[in-house]
Amino acid sequence: MVILDQANRSNSINWQAIAQAFERVVGQANVVQRKEELLVYECDGLTSYRQRPALVVLPRTTEQVAEVVKICNRYQVPFIARGAGTGLSGGALPIENCVLIGTALMKQILEVDLDNQRVVVQPGVINNWVTQAVSGAGFYYAPDPSSQIICSIGGNVAENSGGVHCLKYGVTTNHVLGLKLVLPDGSIVDVGSKVSEMPGYDLTGLFVGSEGTLGIATEITLRILKTAESIHVLLADFTSVEAAGQAVSDIISAGIIPGGMEMMDNFSINAVENVVATNCYPRDADAILLIELDGLSVEVEANSDRVAAICRQNGARNVTVAIDPQERFTLWKGRKAAFAAMGKISPDYYVQDGVIPRTKLQYVLREIEVLSQKHGYRVANVFHAGDGNLHPLILFDNAIPGQLEQVEALGGDILKLCVEVGGSISGEHGIGADKRCYMSEMFNETDLETMLWVRQVFNPDGLANPEKIFPTPRTCGESAHAHQKFPEAEVF
Amino acid sequence: MVILDQANRSNSINWQAIAQAFERVVGQANVVQRKEELLVYECDGLTSYRQRPALVVLPRTTEQVAEVVKICNRYQVPFIARGAGTGLSGGALPIENCVLIGTALMKQILEVDLDNQRVVVQPGVINNWVTQAVSGAGFYYAPDPSSQIICSIGGNVAENSGGVHCLKYGVTTNHVLGLKLVLPDGSIVDVGSKVSEMPGYDLTGLFVGSEGTLGIATEITLRILKTAESIHVLLADFTSVEAAGQAVSDIISAGIIPGGMEMMDNFSINAVENVVATNCYPRDADAILLIELDGLSVEVEANSDRVAAICRQNGARNVTVAIDPQERFTLWKGRKAAFAAMGKISPDYYVQDGVIPRTKLQYVLREIEVLSQKHGYRVANVFHAGDGNLHPLILFDNAIPGQLEQVEALGGDILKLCVEVGGSISGEHGIGADKRCYMSEMFNETDLETMLWVRQVFNPDGLANPEKIFPTPRTCGESAHAHQKFPEAEVF
Repeated sequence: MVILDQANRSNSINWQAIAQAFERVVGQANVVQRKEELLVYECDGLTSYRQRPALVVLPRTTEQVAEVVKICNRYQVPFIARGAGTGLSGGALPIENCVLIGTALMKQILEVDLDNQRVVVQPGVINNWVTQAVSGAGFYYAPDPSSQIICSIGGNVAENSGGVHCLKYGVTTNHVLGLKLVLPDGSIVDVGSKVSEMPGYDLTGLFVGSEGTLGIATEITLRILKTAESIHVLLADFTSVEAAGQAVSDIISAGIIPGGMEMMDNFSINAVENVVATNCYPRDADAILLIELDGLSVEVEANSDRVAAICRQNGARNVTVAIDPQERFTLWKGRKAAFAAMGKISPDYYVQDGVIPRTKLQYVLREIEVLSQKHGYRVANVFHAGDGNLHPLILFDNAIPGQLEQVEALGGDILKLCVEVGGSISGEHGIGADKRCYMSEMFNETDLETMLWVRQVFNPDGLANPEKIFPTPRTCGESAHAHQKFPEAEVF
Repeated sequence: MVILDQANRSNSINWQAIAQAFERVVGQANVVQRKEELLVYECDGLTSYRQRPALVVLPRTTEQVAEVVKICNRYQVPFIARGAGTGLSGGALPIENCVLIGTALMKQILEVDLDNQRVVVQPGVINNWVTQAVSGAGFYYAPDPSSQIICSIGGNVAENSGGVHCLKYGVTTNHVLGLKLVLPDGSIVDVGSKVSEMPGYDLTGLFVGSEGTLGIATEITLRILKTAESIHVLLADFTSVEAAGQAVSDIISAGIIPGGMEMMDNFSINAVENVVATNCYPRDADAILLIELDGLSVEVEANSDRVAAICRQNGARNVTVAIDPQERFTLWKGRKAAFAAMGKISPDYYVQDGVIPRTKLQYVLREIEVLSQKHGYRVANVFHAGDGNLHPLILFDNAIPGQLEQVEALGGDILKLCVEVGGSISGEHGIGADKRCYMSEMFNETDLETMLWVRQVFNPDGLANPEKIFPTPRTCGESAHAHQKFPEAEVF
């Protein structure tokens, strides 16, 4: 591999020839080249960083993806897969002089096998469509990121997405049984299958969450679950965050696993009521819990009573139970609109995503408040309390120079706090471009090198989604030694 | 790497120097060298193949394992990790001139964290000890292979073991959160952690089930679950296997997920009653189902009634429900003793382990009967019906020359049948030495090569557990092309 500096490289790439090669594979209409049309691909849900790709190509089939990847290899240009572009860690952020492979035209549900509870989809299929396709027959697809009406399954697989219901049912990796993959060299392989038990190495598990650095999934076999007979949603309000946190611990300790268990703090409650006016969330509560219980009617009714009792024992002032679908929708509405509500009350917000052992919840929330005051930015807490997956929302104004950097520093301090108590720097949003400098907080050099060995074997030239997940000396300073042994497109 | 033939190689290894190097690490008492003491290590639970290792070494700590592995690297001798030696696919079968690293002295439970429902153990800890350590506090460890009172967690991790309760709770990989590993070059790495959500590649998932070919787990972080409030065990007897199979499908279709759902055929029922005399299993039934339901009392009672009704709708003559622990034990006793019972009524038996989509159950059982008659060997069926994990037991006499080969051919035909209907050649026993020639039935050359890339990166010299999982031309003939690009110890 010839190592050129960035300017030389840019000049030496024959983009016209590459575009023509792509056109021969996917047709002229599906190669995006005009600057104004490329604008929309400059970032994903992490909007604070932008970089225009050189070209966007929109294949329809596995074979087309493979041909496109082979062309990228021939010309040695980096390529980045992009689903719906809703990711929050910049996993689909372009780099300079890259090709973006969009899955927007790969929206077919290829197979519905109700008997075996399997659905096979193309990566561009929207998360919510899977449930829509099978709900009439009494099934659903469990992982439910907040963006589920717009995010794609391919992106969910890349980022190993979670959601409200992942407390009970697990994240994307627990629901993906098989993948057809285009590897970074353009070869096509099948990993996993429709049965859960497969011999050999669990490459399906390895690829889920690898954020496009090991290849592109072009067919995805998902497990679907039977729709629960009964669902209750409980809203409990507390006069202290500590009491709400203790209720969460006590519910889990009682052996009850709710479908979801969410917490919102006073600031979030008021932000949501100001914007969407559910009129359900008491504005003077220090914290509310939203607890969804699902299963057989008898089981849900029994657990509903037990959960309500545990909340009251922990000082809940009121516990409301919603059974009717419309009532349940109303209780969830505020939580689901929480991120959007922050956007209405603040020019900008930065969503952090960290995980802590549930037993550290009260301590960590207090420390976040200390950090918030120290850095001088308001932090709203809306999060998956049951599995200790925090989503602190830091409010700021990106138009004021310097605020983004300060907010990132605060976000970084929160991540370090998560690691300090034995947690993780990402629960469900991935590392992407955003958090790779924090990987060294969680993993030592040998641990990171072991992951890089795996990337190296699948992605030896670093062409598949470079500058993601792993820290590099250029970006993250001297702590990123492990990287130096391994090539990445940025060293071209 | 110098390639020598086997005889030359054997002569060129200085075993005395290796043994002395080991002794300096683990002490003289923990290096086994005498031929009569090495006998016990000639095979694991797959007793039809035997090979004496050159040396057995018994470390106590991660650091000792790492030193032992480094010595193996220095002398370029293959090494094989061995837990309790109960594996059924020959995953711990020695090869000529190898070192066996036994985990028999690594039996410490290192940490019990009830608040976060985690237990950290050394690999030699027996499966059942984990539950024993936490049952007083109301917890248990879910994966329960039939050998759970003697098999070790390290072996469970290597083979991704299952068990009766894996229908509802998943196999070993679903309960392992983190590993401390000694890689094949002797370096020590940590993968995963105590929290479920970890960024980067899921190396924990990759290592579970890799059968010792990617390294040796020396500390294992397990998830423990709350003990269920109530358990019912139902015994339903049917006058046809088809009817029992239909009941299994109908129970799952009703959205009920039993803790376990096992089927035994008439031959197995009688074998068990002859040997352990439960006096519960009707000898004239064509099939029985044992169905365990666990959860809240209200839920279990409701589901118990529904399951009984579904069995009766499918023609069950009797449905017995056991609630009391002693009664439940009695119902399970026959199933748990089924393999041993075969050993009493036949000089030898060969356990096969395949998976099929549940919807193909009736077809596959009929075809197994056809194959049984064609090959002229009796096949007893005792299996995890709920997840389509078959365990055909082929009865034979190893003392009669030629029978083993014929039985293996029948076993192979059953595996091919599993693959033909979209299933898998292994549910929970692993591939090991036993089934690697069937890997090409499930995976094409590119798929196998992709797995071998992974082995290559962690285990480049092929010293860690050679001649396992992957087909080789020498053993499996020309179908094993993929292997030829990758070194393995046998090519020395």
